[in-house]
Amino acid sequence: MYWIDLRSDTVTQPTMAMRQAMKDAIVGDDVYGDDPTVNQLETMAARRMGKEAALFVVSGTMGNQLAVMTHTTPGQEIIANRNCHIIHYECGSPARLSGVGYALTDREDGTVTAEDVISLKRPEHDAHFPATGLVCVENALCNGTVVPMDVLRRTCGTAHDHHIPVHLDGARIFNAALALGVDAAEIAACADSVMFCISKGLCAPVGSLLCGTKDFIEKARANRKALGGGMRQAGVIAACGVLALEDMVERLKEDHDNAKYLGERLNEIPGIYADMDRIQINMVFWKTDIKGFTSYGFVDYMDKKGAKVYGILGDEYRFVTSHDTPRRSLDQVIRLIQEYIHTL
Amino acid sequence: MYWIDLRSDTVTQPTMAMRQAMKDAIVGDDVYGDDPTVNQLETMAARRMGKEAALFVVSGTMGNQLAVMTHTTPGQEIIANRNCHIIHYECGSPARLSGVGYALTDREDGTVTAEDVISLKRPEHDAHFPATGLVCVENALCNGTVVPMDVLRRTCGTAHDHHIPVHLDGARIFNAALALGVDAAEIAACADSVMFCISKGLCAPVGSLLCGTKDFIEKARANRKALGGGMRQAGVIAACGVLALEDMVERLKEDHDNAKYLGERLNEIPGIYADMDRIQINMVFWKTDIKGFTSYGFVDYMDKKGAKVYGILGDEYRFVTSHDTPRRSLDQVIRLIQEYIHTL
Amino acid sequence: MYWIDLRSDTVTQPTMAMRQAMKDAIVGDDVYGDDPTVNQLETMAARRMGKEAALFVVSGTMGNQLAVMTHTTPGQEIIANRNCHIIHYECGSPARLSGVGYALTDREDGTVTAEDVISLKRPEHDAHFPATGLVCVENALCNGTVVPMDVLRRTCGTAHDHHIPVHLDGARIFNAALALGVDAAEIAACADSVMFCISKGLCAPVGSLLCGTKDFIEKARANRKALGGGMRQAGVIAACGVLALEDMVERLKEDHDNAKYLGERLNEIPGIYADMDRIQINMVFWKTDIKGFTSYGFVDYMDKKGAKVYGILGDEYRFVTSHDTPRRSLDQVIRLIQEYIHTL
Amino acid sequence: MYWIDLRSDTVTQPTMAMRQAMKDAIVGDDVYGDDPTVNQLETMAARRMGKEAALFVVSGTMGNQLAVMTHTTPGQEIIANRNCHIIHYECGSPARLSGVGYALTDREDGTVTAEDVISLKRPEHDAHFPATGLVCVENALCNGTVVPMDVLRRTCGTAHDHHIPVHLDGARIFNAALALGVDAAEIAACADSVMFCISKGLCAPVGSLLCGTKDFIEKARANRKALGGGMRQAGVIAACGVLALEDMVERLKEDHDNAKYLGERLNEIPGIYADMDRIQINMVFWKTDIKGFTSYGFVDYMDKKGAKVYGILGDEYRFVTSHDTPRRSLDQVIRLIQEYIHTL
Repeated sequence: MYWIDLRSDTVTQPTMAMRQAMKDAIVGDDVYGDDPTVNQLETMAARRMGKEAALFVVSGTMGNQLAVMTHTTPGQEIIANRNCHIIHYECGSPARLSGVGYALTDREDGTVTAEDVISLKRPEHDAHFPATGLVCVENALCNGTVVPMDVLRRTCGTAHDHHIPVHLDGARIFNAALALGVDAAEIAACADSVMFCISKGLCAPVGSLLCGTKDFIEKARANRKALGGGMRQAGVIAACGVLALEDMVERLKEDHDNAKYLGERLNEIPGIYADMDRIQINMVFWKTDIKGFTSYGFVDYMDKKGAKVYGILGDEYRFVTSHDTPRRSLDQVIRLIQEYIHTL
Repeated sequence: MYWIDLRSDTVTQPTMAMRQAMKDAIVGDDVYGDDPTVNQLETMAARRMGKEAALFVVSGTMGNQLAVMTHTTPGQEIIANRNCHIIHYECGSPARLSGVGYALTDREDGTVTAEDVISLKRPEHDAHFPATGLVCVENALCNGTVVPMDVLRRTCGTAHDHHIPVHLDGARIFNAALALGVDAAEIAACADSVMFCISKGLCAPVGSLLCGTKDFIEKARANRKALGGGMRQAGVIAACGVLALEDMVERLKEDHDNAKYLGERLNEIPGIYADMDRIQINMVFWKTDIKGFTSYGFVDYMDKKGAKVYGILGDEYRFVTSHDTPRRSLDQVIRLIQEYIHTL
Repeated sequence: MYWIDLRSDTVTQPTMAMRQAMKDAIVGDDVYGDDPTVNQLETMAARRMGKEAALFVVSGTMGNQLAVMTHTTPGQEIIANRNCHIIHYECGSPARLSGVGYALTDREDGTVTAEDVISLKRPEHDAHFPATGLVCVENALCNGTVVPMDVLRRTCGTAHDHHIPVHLDGARIFNAALALGVDAAEIAACADSVMFCISKGLCAPVGSLLCGTKDFIEKARANRKALGGGMRQAGVIAACGVLALEDMVERLKEDHDNAKYLGERLNEIPGIYADMDRIQINMVFWKTDIKGFTSYGFVDYMDKKGAKVYGILGDEYRFVTSHDTPRRSLDQVIRLIQEYIHTL
Repeated sequence: MYWIDLRSDTVTQPTMAMRQAMKDAIVGDDVYGDDPTVNQLETMAARRMGKEAALFVVSGTMGNQLAVMTHTTPGQEIIANRNCHIIHYECGSPARLSGVGYALTDREDGTVTAEDVISLKRPEHDAHFPATGLVCVENALCNGTVVPMDVLRRTCGTAHDHHIPVHLDGARIFNAALALGVDAAEIAACADSVMFCISKGLCAPVGSLLCGTKDFIEKARANRKALGGGMRQAGVIAACGVLALEDMVERLKEDHDNAKYLGERLNEIPGIYADMDRIQINMVFWKTDIKGFTSYGFVDYMDKKGAKVYGILGDEYRFVTSHDTPRRSLDQVIRLIQEYIHTL
């Protein structure tokens, strides 16, 4: 059975070229620094982000948590938006692994502003307070929108004015770059370290890259070993990453266009409302007031017809487009929704 | 030189009766459970809070952090108000010592409501998220106001409905009880554990009590040892605590009355505005728009004249009344402020 | 240039069959539990170890550390041999990630005996002491020898008598099983949890399996996410693991035979002494008293001639045989050593 | 009823002079640095130890653990004897609070030698290993003997040669100084930081002092706050510490003489064997082969007659002499032992 999967771009399958690359990869023992394909990917990643060095890690969560561990010391505090991935979706690991507390902004749009940095940073040299050790920003935000360059620059600049380092969770930095019309390195330049994923829209099966100064990456490499994140012949998956960076970045435009297309098609269905303004990358958020339309019923119907979707979160649904959801799949999804509505 | 100190009620000196009690205390080695005076104080404290057992600790911070350590496991998350003492004034210790993250409400009044608990608790059985391990509430709040009983009951009840334990930071629980017209045990009954201080308005030189079930206190006792918080002949200071509970609770009314008196006297000075509604316990918050009145100049002038005060925090000043600030001291403070204003 | 690598069996390259399997793997998003190849590998692994469930992890270190995290709580203590991998080669992670202390035996042979468990376990219910939370054993030992079944059974039995769980670091459990003439599951049966590697002698590029009860593995899975160890389309590497278990276990006998062969050939060289008694799996330890033979000179000479070897550790050298060191490579190594000796 | 207590010198009661001093103490809020008596004690302590600065803490455990926290970073390793107080009697706190692992020597006499430092320290710049962050030594040892100055100097010197700091657990440093015939500062000079207790033989009810460089103590002060170890009007107990240092150090000679006297008297009893060579400070270890003499029976008999003693540990009993066990008490203890033997 053919499955359409609109849950996330993390579900993307490796391309045929990637599968061939895995088969042909020249590999070595990366724990000894001997894997030429990993070394190639780390060099490419650093260059793409305009940083001195990069580290191949098994997941975005590991990349982000290594950044927190490497920038901070226990008892410090990190500034972040309450809903960012590092705080909200990574199992409480900043506290658990790095012993850092959280100074959180509730800002609904998901950003951390320069004003937030000012109001959340702690006074220095006062033993009552933890020291502020890091500002965490995201672009694209995990809510599917992007942060304008001037906002990001002001936030990071303010942090730096107060000698606080900045980590950028750029899991979908290439989507953000596309939406903002800038180079990814321009976004990364705002921050001291940046993590981006090759396993999402870029279709690699596994992995992310953490980038920063040579000294920072050396320390992060030691911390990666402490987390058990060292891999042996990791070149087999790094080979997919090389292709992800070479071949898959440009085509993200398709995903963005498809998201807009899907939003428009959804809005053609009476009682369904996709928020076109929020379709900035490859995510479509929509609501419905159709009588009898239930989260459980909808997910179940779609599943039986071969399409995997998430149920309602808060008061809205989310669809994510990717390499594996070509336009004919989206049309099929629209048809299935219409069918489901007819059953109500 | 005689000093008036309006910075906090933590500065209160032990009374003469307490000094005599220290001299006469019957003591033993409390690490072996042999100190009768400590045992007496712990029994009294538990009874006052309506809990099974109590543990004498060296500070309110230690009592609160032991509660967090004992209720949670690393990687869990605690719900609290961003400005509460546990999060804001205790050096980031929940993350550092217990490895727990923070789910914070920004609510300006300092409370955590039932709605906050609902929106901040995490879905169960989802590995993406930390488990919610504890709700932290305060009464009185560290901003000097009290939480109405129905609000506190709803918050704690909601937490309990979701099987989340509640710790109450009752550093000034007797002030809160007085302001609310209830018994302290009635406030404590809302929570699974409560910490209160004998070193603030109650005038003991050192110490706080953590109260809860017998099993909870046994675990907290082991954790206290791990923090290095075990004391030997602690009865010498516990003796002050016994007097604090016996003799000093009722007289907190004077501090509250004095706070209102001080607020009224401040409002008699043109250009000074004390917020009478916020004088619920022994704290007076006031602002000024007097030309030339500066935080630095004010603190310095008062200091030279024998009165210790804090400078501006945010846009307001705070005075705290206590056993050591009788009405004649408050009158003197008013005189000094007037003198300072004349120098401008 | 063709390289011979005798440093470790971790350096083994994936076989052609594995490369083909990666290319053809049916994969899904393992974070959602959707990857059929990962599920297949986990099922196979659990069955091979005679445990209820298994978890695919990126490294042996991660598997071991997850076992420590999942079996213990912070402030407990683990019993282990001072030189075991978990204590000696994993970056201090038991203390750092799990907050557990170490009760170590110095036993030179690398084992933990029943007597060690008795003497190192802590008295219960005494707040002075940490609780003993776990006994860690290894088989094969990381020094290249194996622990007899009766010794292992007594150690684990004694731990269980005192209600202390046991984790077995079985990084090379199939080598141990072969040397002991038992099934791997028989070794694993002694312990509550077991970790084994597919990336060493079994030639898979990346990965290890942690096995235990269903409940234990469920908790370990959540902890894996907290460490950032969750992978997306991990099936591409799990596919190699499936082949490793199906096709590569039996052939470990070649590595053991080759190790003995290499030992004998080394002993033919005057002034070189391989300890034949210690060649129990695929490791050969040898010493030399040849005048002028230096660690640095030797490693450098071999490297120039196309063979990677480690320098002296303590007072001996170690060679490890693997799938990638067929007998002709070993003969070549002997020739190179003889050549190097002639240069002295 | 009058109790003799030979369990430990921690049980000593404050002297009448100390009780008077508590009553009369001039105190302030030490969290603000305002307590003159605490400041006086810290100054005296630093001077006695020949260090720049000192910090008053609530217990020896807190002093030691603050030293570990302040000298190390998580993931490092500390070198110590397996039986030292920091590792064996402090609840596993180095791992739990500081995230450091242990490299332990088994040396039976309780020391850490220069050779241990060499063999236990880790290679630098190798990501497989934790960095060695601290060497922990004791004098007097918690087994009641002292470490000769040349041994201590060689150990500490070797650590310093490898740029590893040294912390000295000097809980009974004045006993050690007396036994060694040197000034306590001479012992302290070997280490970067030193902790000593005023609550043991020196009779103060509560407290210890951590001493080191000004910078070290400043960081330790912040860490003390994080542990909840900050005290308010701590001068009431610091006042006892001042007397402890002024009046009680010299009289430790009585305790040592009494220990020898007690040992001799014990050896007069047939079947009781006190090890005179091990009576170096105020501790007497003895064995017995008297038929029917049981640990439980002995402790119970003594308790009924008004003397608190510990039961057997390993194969021997321990008596500790102190200010509260004058010679007439020791004679009484001998009588009670003889009486108990007659009941057998």
